[in-house]
Amino acid sequence: MQSDLQSRLFDAVDAAFDQQVAFLSDLTAFPSTRGQEQAAQDFMARALTTRGYELDRWQIDVAEIQHLPGFSPVLGPYEDAVNVVGTRRSKTKTGRSLILNGHIDVVPEGPLDMWDSPPYEPRVEGGWLYGRGGGDMKAGLASNLFAMDALAACGLAPAADVFYQSVVEEECTGNGALACLARGYTADAALIPEPFSEKLVTAQLGVLWFQVHLKGRPTHVAYAGSGANAIEAAIPLIKALHEMEHRWNAAENRPDDYAHMEHALNLNVAKIKGGDWTSSVPAWAVFDVRMAIFPGQSIEAAKTEIEEVILDAARENDFLRNSLPEIVYHGFEAEGYALSQDSSERARSAIDALGDAHQAATGADLKKAAITATTDARFFGLYADTPALVYGPRAEAIHGFNERVELESMRRVTKATASFIARWCGTEEI
Amino acid sequence: MQSDLQSRLFDAVDAAFDQQVAFLSDLTAFPSTRGQEQAAQDFMARALTTRGYELDRWQIDVAEIQHLPGFSPVLGPYEDAVNVVGTRRSKTKTGRSLILNGHIDVVPEGPLDMWDSPPYEPRVEGGWLYGRGGGDMKAGLASNLFAMDALAACGLAPAADVFYQSVVEEECTGNGALACLARGYTADAALIPEPFSEKLVTAQLGVLWFQVHLKGRPTHVAYAGSGANAIEAAIPLIKALHEMEHRWNAAENRPDDYAHMEHALNLNVAKIKGGDWTSSVPAWAVFDVRMAIFPGQSIEAAKTEIEEVILDAARENDFLRNSLPEIVYHGFEAEGYALSQDSSERARSAIDALGDAHQAATGADLKKAAITATTDARFFGLYADTPALVYGPRAEAIHGFNERVELESMRRVTKATASFIARWCGTEEI
Repeated sequence: MQSDLQSRLFDAVDAAFDQQVAFLSDLTAFPSTRGQEQAAQDFMARALTTRGYELDRWQIDVAEIQHLPGFSPVLGPYEDAVNVVGTRRSKTKTGRSLILNGHIDVVPEGPLDMWDSPPYEPRVEGGWLYGRGGGDMKAGLASNLFAMDALAACGLAPAADVFYQSVVEEECTGNGALACLARGYTADAALIPEPFSEKLVTAQLGVLWFQVHLKGRPTHVAYAGSGANAIEAAIPLIKALHEMEHRWNAAENRPDDYAHMEHALNLNVAKIKGGDWTSSVPAWAVFDVRMAIFPGQSIEAAKTEIEEVILDAARENDFLRNSLPEIVYHGFEAEGYALSQDSSERARSAIDALGDAHQAATGADLKKAAITATTDARFFGLYADTPALVYGPRAEAIHGFNERVELESMRRVTKATASFIARWCGTEEI
Repeated sequence: MQSDLQSRLFDAVDAAFDQQVAFLSDLTAFPSTRGQEQAAQDFMARALTTRGYELDRWQIDVAEIQHLPGFSPVLGPYEDAVNVVGTRRSKTKTGRSLILNGHIDVVPEGPLDMWDSPPYEPRVEGGWLYGRGGGDMKAGLASNLFAMDALAACGLAPAADVFYQSVVEEECTGNGALACLARGYTADAALIPEPFSEKLVTAQLGVLWFQVHLKGRPTHVAYAGSGANAIEAAIPLIKALHEMEHRWNAAENRPDDYAHMEHALNLNVAKIKGGDWTSSVPAWAVFDVRMAIFPGQSIEAAKTEIEEVILDAARENDFLRNSLPEIVYHGFEAEGYALSQDSSERARSAIDALGDAHQAATGADLKKAAITATTDARFFGLYADTPALVYGPRAEAIHGFNERVELESMRRVTKATASFIARWCGTEEI
């Protein structure tokens, strides 16, 4: 790549950076939690249309994706699950096509009093933008968009089709990214700027979500016998699940990417609800669990073991023995994915191009990391034979309070992305 | 008491018993959970007015009772807390006055699918009436009313004022009964037909309700460290509370009425709620506890120990140490009460009168019992120097599913009550 073009691209990112921060701030102001993404998707659609992208906006139809590998079960309505894709078609089509993917959904903000300032009133302080979703991953959506803008500002377009995706459902199923695949969007590579501190993600875990429903026949607390309490009956099940977590993390079960991690697989007892009245022994409780699995670990085998662990523990409990828990799957049934295992020439070439772009933008070598979360990368990598590069800015407290993203990091990632697009797709005159 | 009057009263109860069962069924059909009692109270008010009682119906004003002994703290609005009292004034006032007390509020029905038939569609089967509140304690309200009706059917009225009370809030604070006291309703004795199998309650426990609020600063589950989970942080606190429960139940702490009971004081972890998102480490959890105390045990000392136990356990937990739980009291701050400790002539005489009435109605001696719950009796006994007789029909699964009350038991209690009224108050011509 010509160093002249490189510096013109970087200058263009710098020139538009205030605009980009304003865009990120506007986007972060939308409380786009699951089911509430539409206004934020309107905003994205306008941003793409204004820039001349060909717009595709559609409601996800579960019937069209539920038979596909990678589908995760859905609880509740899907009327609000709307994807937005903007396409920039190349005139010459001499280069390699690219998907720039990001998700618009954010996780709930939790108790407001835990935030130093309101989660949907983004503020910039000390070089960071604070707000729910600012890091995970609206800065990435901004980076993808303004990287493309930088090319345009230089009078250039990618010399291959580029598909800009703003998807829903990344935080619970991945069905937004899956719906893009089902609609026919494929390319030679995908880039997903999830906030992993400018490192290239070489492996990600799979994730399973499940609910455990406990029920029984208790009565007035005056007659409470020990153990006949649906809430307390959850405790030995949680203990047994943590023992399973410990086994799964054992050294002999770790693939190479995770060999160095003592505890990559986290089991999270995430939500709980039970009981109706303080002087009634609780007859029911439900708790929600997130459990990770390694790349290569079978979802079906994991589910079978989870069920065995729960039911075995229940059979040891007087209360549960006669009223075994019900296990309901909802949300993530996500396999792990390791870019490191993709030995194709395409993957090698894409990684090299990103490495060079990162070097150019930051002056440092591209670091690589295996992460303990999942991302939508698995759909491209596992089900569409497309190398998926997860590479985005530095953020903190994602899913927590006072979530924030470092603005200079977003700037570097935007530059690296612009450079990567030019390297991967090549360029043509507008 | 003349045996002739006795049999006329019993015949009158029998003659109206189908009506009484229909009344109980109609009353049980009202889902009069806390905040939803008004329609049921309308029904009670009509029943009293039709019968010529002087009606008093008023909304409880927290300001008027919150300084009184026995008051329990209230969370939430009180607009719907309406008491109904019907007064039958004596012309001669030659006898001893009486309060006939019952509560209209019922506890929540819990998951509907645990009921064999809908909880507010009462049905009679095999001599039992099924439905939420049928036992606890609408059968008692019916018994009080139809016992008075039996006197009227014999052309008689009590020879002293009788106050028929239908109160709210028995199941959470007792503030309904307290508001009756504050309004000036006192008498020489009180009868409360709570469903304790035709036994006279000689002692009842005190009850404390409290909430434990846990909060912390967790993040994406991918970075979950052990212990940084607000839901799981509740587990060691629950364990410590059960250890306290064990200590409080120790033989050396039991008053005479409970000396024979290994485990009179039940600690109930009754409700729990926590977490917002399955892939976020839960930042908060709240659980509700009911704990019993013995008669004579100090509420303030109990609260102090509860707080110490919770905070000591929290300080041993990495997550909680820096974010100590908040303990909130709402609902019951109820002292225990033992009629057995009332050595007054009035108490002895009331117990004797009930014993004779029970013997006449059932042919058996009146059994006595210390119970592991609380009732509104404490207000009369502790704060108004009035012996309070808790004596009502046999019911099962109160606070549970398929709650039911035995109709023949209600018949016997109604007869015993009619006989007791005639013995205690004496009679006069209408």
